[in-house]
Amino acid sequence: MAATGANMSIRAIRYKISASVQENGPRPVLPLAHGDPSVFPAFRTAVEAEDAVAAALRTGQFNCYPAGVGLPAARSAVAEHLSQGVPYKLSADDIFLTAGGTQAIEVIIPVLAQTAGANILLPRPGYPNYEARAAFNKLEVRHFDLIPEKGWEVDIDSLESIADKNTTAMVIINPNNPCGSVYSYDHLAKVAEVARKLGILVIADEVYGKLVLGCAPFIPMGVFGHTTPVLSIGSLSKSWIVPGWRLGWVAVYDPRKILEETKISTSITNYLNVSTDPATFIQAALPQILENTKEDFFKGIIGLLKESSEICYREIKENKYITCPHKPEGSMFVMVKLNLHLLEEIHDDIDFCCKLAKEESVILCPGSVLGMENWVRITFACVPTSLRDGLERIKSFCQRNNKKNLINGC
Amino acid sequence: MAATGANMSIRAIRYKISASVQENGPRPVLPLAHGDPSVFPAFRTAVEAEDAVAAALRTGQFNCYPAGVGLPAARSAVAEHLSQGVPYKLSADDIFLTAGGTQAIEVIIPVLAQTAGANILLPRPGYPNYEARAAFNKLEVRHFDLIPEKGWEVDIDSLESIADKNTTAMVIINPNNPCGSVYSYDHLAKVAEVARKLGILVIADEVYGKLVLGCAPFIPMGVFGHTTPVLSIGSLSKSWIVPGWRLGWVAVYDPRKILEETKISTSITNYLNVSTDPATFIQAALPQILENTKEDFFKGIIGLLKESSEICYREIKENKYITCPHKPEGSMFVMVKLNLHLLEEIHDDIDFCCKLAKEESVILCPGSVLGMENWVRITFACVPTSLRDGLERIKSFCQRNNKKNLINGC
Repeated sequence: MAATGANMSIRAIRYKISASVQENGPRPVLPLAHGDPSVFPAFRTAVEAEDAVAAALRTGQFNCYPAGVGLPAARSAVAEHLSQGVPYKLSADDIFLTAGGTQAIEVIIPVLAQTAGANILLPRPGYPNYEARAAFNKLEVRHFDLIPEKGWEVDIDSLESIADKNTTAMVIINPNNPCGSVYSYDHLAKVAEVARKLGILVIADEVYGKLVLGCAPFIPMGVFGHTTPVLSIGSLSKSWIVPGWRLGWVAVYDPRKILEETKISTSITNYLNVSTDPATFIQAALPQILENTKEDFFKGIIGLLKESSEICYREIKENKYITCPHKPEGSMFVMVKLNLHLLEEIHDDIDFCCKLAKEESVILCPGSVLGMENWVRITFACVPTSLRDGLERIKSFCQRNNKKNLINGC
Repeated sequence: MAATGANMSIRAIRYKISASVQENGPRPVLPLAHGDPSVFPAFRTAVEAEDAVAAALRTGQFNCYPAGVGLPAARSAVAEHLSQGVPYKLSADDIFLTAGGTQAIEVIIPVLAQTAGANILLPRPGYPNYEARAAFNKLEVRHFDLIPEKGWEVDIDSLESIADKNTTAMVIINPNNPCGSVYSYDHLAKVAEVARKLGILVIADEVYGKLVLGCAPFIPMGVFGHTTPVLSIGSLSKSWIVPGWRLGWVAVYDPRKILEETKISTSITNYLNVSTDPATFIQAALPQILENTKEDFFKGIIGLLKESSEICYREIKENKYITCPHKPEGSMFVMVKLNLHLLEEIHDDIDFCCKLAKEESVILCPGSVLGMENWVRITFACVPTSLRDGLERIKSFCQRNNKKNLINGC
């Protein structure tokens, strides 16, 4: 288990690559591997959110244990917040508060793994915590591809061919990590329709839900809850730029109450009853956070991300050693293909990332940990100067390792 | 899994019993089931602790993800804090920060369960999250008894008879939940010696470490780290009366570095890399919390608990329907035996607790969820007026259900 987990852990890989950085190097380390721009003052969270947490702490009323599934007022607030995006009402009972999106995965996967022989369909590339937790819980994983040429849409046709009667669920990440795509209504409708046909539920990882940079709007998967039951994973982490607050949720979108029969909600409750919780006073602040955060805050964050995503896409286009098949429209990431045939003695994506870290103090996430060998994931959730600097260093690194150079004896 | 978990969840049982309370009853509900007095102003946490968390939040520097094993400064601070109690130094690498003691159990049990066929020795009565997590992770559980007549000491002789070559660890809870006992140096030395002989590690659940009410001091199990490796579970929750802050740790006391070979630390790291974390800004506050909290705060809390433990013990002695074999010396709890032969139509401890909740709005924890049928756990972590009121109501309930009454036709 530990070995499997270690191989699949995005953190472990990131730490490994960070360890290649030369200590006391002349230039600052540029972490372009993970989606956490909170260290930059420009990405500071909303003052209303910070005030709400400070106020809840200062009351002294929320030092207590919360209920296992979360504070009732916080669950209600999330239910109301999410109901705005779908054609029916969620209730507090449909919401389970979790310690970030991470704990949502920690809870959902073992609940699905209860059925002996069950399997789950995961996207490739994807977010490796799903694979790691599935391995821990002995839930069989089957991968379907996201198609780069089609804006990283799900290969719908393949879903039916890899699923069988033991398939319980599929995961869709929208806006997409690691690809930066935002799925259209029509595409999500197709996904829901296939899920209905297969009799499986859809786990919609929507932690980047508010971070949409282009014209295409974010469509919550819950819109298709009438077609097939949806468990949506959400969180403050990304939209409010507070991954360290560890507050997320699982929302059950199931207007036809199909999941009641399978007792999914009961199982989630049971699991959360013996699991840790988000800090109570942060839960207590949630109603105010959701209600009081001004639209201007999100506009500001989206403006920053849009600007940096465009810089990122432009600079990548000008670097012949890497290829980006699709301009990012959401989340904080873009996937790029390494043109290894142009590079000398770079064996694969991990080698690329380790050498880049060592020589340029730039940290990227190797694609193989996300299921796509010889690709890398770059985050653009960064201030423009650092991002430009990072992309420049990547280019210098590639040029220095140009295959021609060696042939010419340079 | 869900079924097993549900049966073993102390929260689920508590909620079930709370559901028996009559809504809109004439008297306030008295929750004497769980160890969380934070709602009472007298038990408000230290101002230094609250200030440290507020200050860390307000810097805006700790909205980021922490490292999987915790912030380095916080790990160092815990290492220094714990080193004071043992004859050698812990380093930051020996400390893993967890989201409360709950997550410490969530991490340790699956790490031990990696070895196929492994088993663990757990105390009876005990803390049922160990059993629940062991069930989830298919780790075999074998119970040893705590002996009420000997101050709830471990039945040392039985350990050797229930252990075998697949036994990996034993758990000792000190100060003890649910019994309120505090183990002596000599007793802990005997436990360590048996563990050494059996070649197993000791998991010392020391979340009540600072809450010692009598003359006997708290001896950290790490004192015997030279005899056998110890994983200690600690937390702010109980000593600082902030269970809702969800900040705890696993400390590795292993001066002979025996666990390095078994890669326990690596496994814990791997597991934490794909798990949720304590909130970063609360971690960031930990060095100040540990350094700045005044001794007076703990003296105050211990004074309150000592007073209420004495009230509790005295009142129980005056109630012939329940028997307390040992005066509590620490933690927040005492175990009492129900003298069911004196009570009419009370079938068992769960029945007792449900009827008590319904008729008297007092919530107790039934012993069967802790491994001891027809006992109940009472917390004395409560202000004296509420505690006296609760114990009075328990007495009225017992008197009303006195077996004689029915025989006499009353």
